[in-house]
Amino acid sequence: MTGRDGGADISPIGNAPVVVLVRPQLADNIGGVARAMANGGLFNLRLVAPRDGWPQEKAWRNASGADRILDAATVHASVADAVADLHRVFATCPRPRHIIKPLLTARGAAAELRDLEARGLDSGLLFGPERAGLDNDDMAHADSLIRYPLNPAFMSLNLAQAVMVMAYEWWISADTTPPRTLMTNETHVATKGELENFLTHLVTELDACGFLRNLPKRPGMVRNIRHLFERGEVTEQELRTLHGMVTELARGRGR
Amino acid sequence: MTGRDGGADISPIGNAPVVVLVRPQLADNIGGVARAMANGGLFNLRLVAPRDGWPQEKAWRNASGADRILDAATVHASVADAVADLHRVFATCPRPRHIIKPLLTARGAAAELRDLEARGLDSGLLFGPERAGLDNDDMAHADSLIRYPLNPAFMSLNLAQAVMVMAYEWWISADTTPPRTLMTNETHVATKGELENFLTHLVTELDACGFLRNLPKRPGMVRNIRHLFERGEVTEQELRTLHGMVTELARGRGR
Repeated sequence: MTGRDGGADISPIGNAPVVVLVRPQLADNIGGVARAMANGGLFNLRLVAPRDGWPQEKAWRNASGADRILDAATVHASVADAVADLHRVFATCPRPRHIIKPLLTARGAAAELRDLEARGLDSGLLFGPERAGLDNDDMAHADSLIRYPLNPAFMSLNLAQAVMVMAYEWWISADTTPPRTLMTNETHVATKGELENFLTHLVTELDACGFLRNLPKRPGMVRNIRHLFERGEVTEQELRTLHGMVTELARGRGR
Repeated sequence: MTGRDGGADISPIGNAPVVVLVRPQLADNIGGVARAMANGGLFNLRLVAPRDGWPQEKAWRNASGADRILDAATVHASVADAVADLHRVFATCPRPRHIIKPLLTARGAAAELRDLEARGLDSGLLFGPERAGLDNDDMAHADSLIRYPLNPAFMSLNLAQAVMVMAYEWWISADTTPPRTLMTNETHVATKGELENFLTHLVTELDACGFLRNLPKRPGMVRNIRHLFERGEVTEQELRTLHGMVTELARGRGR
């Protein structure tokens, strides 16, 4: 089950937090957790007393290539053992309990985790078993609690999805925002001058065919047509298409 | 399969975006999607050509009580049909393609979705099939693309987890920011179905005038024309103008 070579290239970045699954029940979920960890750049997985033992073939089958995370996962008898070498522990906790500890959102926790990383400290995230969640003894090992802001009318959160939300917040807290517009190298945004050429072409043909024959309304109509085409970037290729469309549509009137 | 009473109490809030699963393959995942939707306060699910038909018992088994979402899910033959009554469509898109459209993060998209909600407009989120993702024809129906900032070295994102991230961002974006788009009371945003009517009109005339005579290139050209007009909101008034322009331009060819 371990030592596979087929896994995806997963490149660890910095000393990301350790994910600690406490008494996980389903191997499927452990695989889903590994996949979600890979999505969000978390690479260290620890299992505390997995119900069905470890390793479990099903976990690898459900990890979609995040094999290295499962290969490197370690098994621990207790939460205390699993967090022994860490500097700070956060426990995910859907329900309020009779304890008093700092309570963070996922986003707030991500900011603290980044802060710890920057200071070279090791942190861990505890996730409880599928149905019961972490118990009071488990949470006693945590410095802070994390509660996700989610629909209070439907709190049943799948284990892999709980990890997904935290892994996602971890990744985006690194602040690598992609550019706002998707564009490939082959795409060239038209200049305003090129767009103007098209609008001139279009209006000329609209005059010729009589669409703009109502002279009092003509300026407003032309302005509205401009509004329509000035709404975001148009590519050069698209402008060529538009020119061609107008030309062909206008053909046959003997012009 | 439908009409169960055992579902959790899921209280819809406002006109939340519709989740559209395009050609989903696994009923397990559809159930997982419903569960994630409930977590994040999304309640309207539409299925485009689910591979194994619908309903599927497995979906309910994997939804952890989000039954009402599955009970109310509708099945559609095409993306065009599934989005016909919506005003704005966002497509989740892991890989860059040869298209130009606004590209948003999940968080950025959530802000826009809230903005649309505040304006009383209906929006939809397209998610592609498990392995292939959305194809170019699917994405041509979208105004904007959403790409999650996640580990580029491991892009394999489970369908339910993709929905989870968006549902989570939707939920936490609930804080009240004023709408970002200027719109007067007299302006009515056209639905996707109304836009589709115009595209049908346009393509009919482009066929008639010979612009689309190159049959091998025709599908790509039609798709590019769709891309061009699916880039943001078009008003009903503007659609009337566009219809009029095409009609008048095409006149005089004896038609």
